[in-house]
Amino acid sequence: MGRKIVRRRVIKVSLDGSSRTREDQLAGEEPLEIRFGHTSYTTSMRTPGDDFDMVTGFLVSEGLISEPEHLASLRYCAGTDEAGNQTYNVIEVQLGPGAKHPDLLAARNVVTSSACGICGTNSIDEVRKKAAFAPPPESGRIELETLLGLPDTLRASQKLFSSTGGVHAAGLFSTSGELMILREDVGRHNAVDKVIGAALREGLLPLENTVLQVSGRASFELVQKAAMAGIPVLSAVSAPSSLAADLAEESGLTLAAFSRGRSVNLYTHAERVIHA
Amino acid sequence: MGRKIVRRRVIKVSLDGSSRTREDQLAGEEPLEIRFGHTSYTTSMRTPGDDFDMVTGFLVSEGLISEPEHLASLRYCAGTDEAGNQTYNVIEVQLGPGAKHPDLLAARNVVTSSACGICGTNSIDEVRKKAAFAPPPESGRIELETLLGLPDTLRASQKLFSSTGGVHAAGLFSTSGELMILREDVGRHNAVDKVIGAALREGLLPLENTVLQVSGRASFELVQKAAMAGIPVLSAVSAPSSLAADLAEESGLTLAAFSRGRSVNLYTHAERVIHA
Repeated sequence: MGRKIVRRRVIKVSLDGSSRTREDQLAGEEPLEIRFGHTSYTTSMRTPGDDFDMVTGFLVSEGLISEPEHLASLRYCAGTDEAGNQTYNVIEVQLGPGAKHPDLLAARNVVTSSACGICGTNSIDEVRKKAAFAPPPESGRIELETLLGLPDTLRASQKLFSSTGGVHAAGLFSTSGELMILREDVGRHNAVDKVIGAALREGLLPLENTVLQVSGRASFELVQKAAMAGIPVLSAVSAPSSLAADLAEESGLTLAAFSRGRSVNLYTHAERVIHA
Repeated sequence: MGRKIVRRRVIKVSLDGSSRTREDQLAGEEPLEIRFGHTSYTTSMRTPGDDFDMVTGFLVSEGLISEPEHLASLRYCAGTDEAGNQTYNVIEVQLGPGAKHPDLLAARNVVTSSACGICGTNSIDEVRKKAAFAPPPESGRIELETLLGLPDTLRASQKLFSSTGGVHAAGLFSTSGELMILREDVGRHNAVDKVIGAALREGLLPLENTVLQVSGRASFELVQKAAMAGIPVLSAVSAPSSLAADLAEESGLTLAAFSRGRSVNLYTHAERVIHA
């Protein structure tokens, strides 16, 4: 697992008077800096692992790339610790033909937290990015029973959560309920970026006839990322925010939330979910 | 409640074949832009309400202010919708004597998600800000039983969560367990910024002998915000990340997590928690 899990001594104290010192496993969290040439673009707190997929998915979410050819190379660069060892926390991007180049002058040198995914645009108007792929209404039709089963499949496949109890998961499923790609991260948006990056690498974009199931809430940014990758259905275990529902409505996405085993709330484009 | 809660039509579909359309209440989420003069500094997704407190707390977290005098004024400015109505989504900051002025050239025009609080510095080295107040070891000593009771008090006082099920809460407590300030938001860091901003406005910084109880996980950035406000104890209901524990150790903060009624895990500076 490498740096995905960090062991740390913890004291568990209980009301019954017991106090036990043991070794606990915490989800790893380290900064990852993305550079274009020698210019820093953004820095995010993330759980190490699948870093190239995360950067790839982030670039899709930002609207810079939408095909494997748009990315010429990704490599770990610079970034050494006090002892001169490579930290694997700085990645340099080289875009390929057809990619949209970022505006490096427009203030993108930012540090974003483990929970931040849409950092980097510089006005409220720019918050809403144009989706590269608008999902057609016939894409992503799924049986209610299949949709309701996705959270259990996701949870059962979450290796990191079992150890640490402290990470979000995002799973890309086919409309027949098959788990295609699963990623975990301390930041929910990172988990989604990692999924989308892996999908782009495999040439799967736009992600027609897929469902993105997430372990937590559905925020505005998760809807945005799903829309940028052409995912027609976003399903969350917990609540959506108001802006998440607004954006899903506009973007033609089906937003399902409070998916709790026996029932689910459909906020937008409910027609994709087939039920009695 | 105004824009804190947004009503929206939802279809609840169940495996038993029922399908009911009803009105659901979603947590409000809108962008808030912070400006210095006419220059945009940062934009965050947040739940409207207590906006001035949120901006104040954010400035404390950024290390720009630490006393009420450091802030000359905050006012809603610009920001109108298509119909020309004030959106109350842009706030202009005027700093007072003694404040540290932000480096507006250094790339701070960023949009941060509802879950992002440390956006805005521009290299990994800057991720760790210097705490304005280092909590002394004797500050914040609390009985185990009192500490274990805080999540229930927090939850019982959460108005927005009861309606929407979709928000984070942060509560500032005295070491005797009294709730001093509670704030809710779709972004966990916003809830903490709002608490710290309210505390600064009331002249309470540094927040000696207090405990910050949060409803979710303990990320790096929450530890950082607590440290900047001089809060000696941070307690979370869920898991901490590895970097959260590292920073708490360095900053002299007690980090408690998995606070679950009968027991709690103490990751750093356990000596503040008094138990049998």
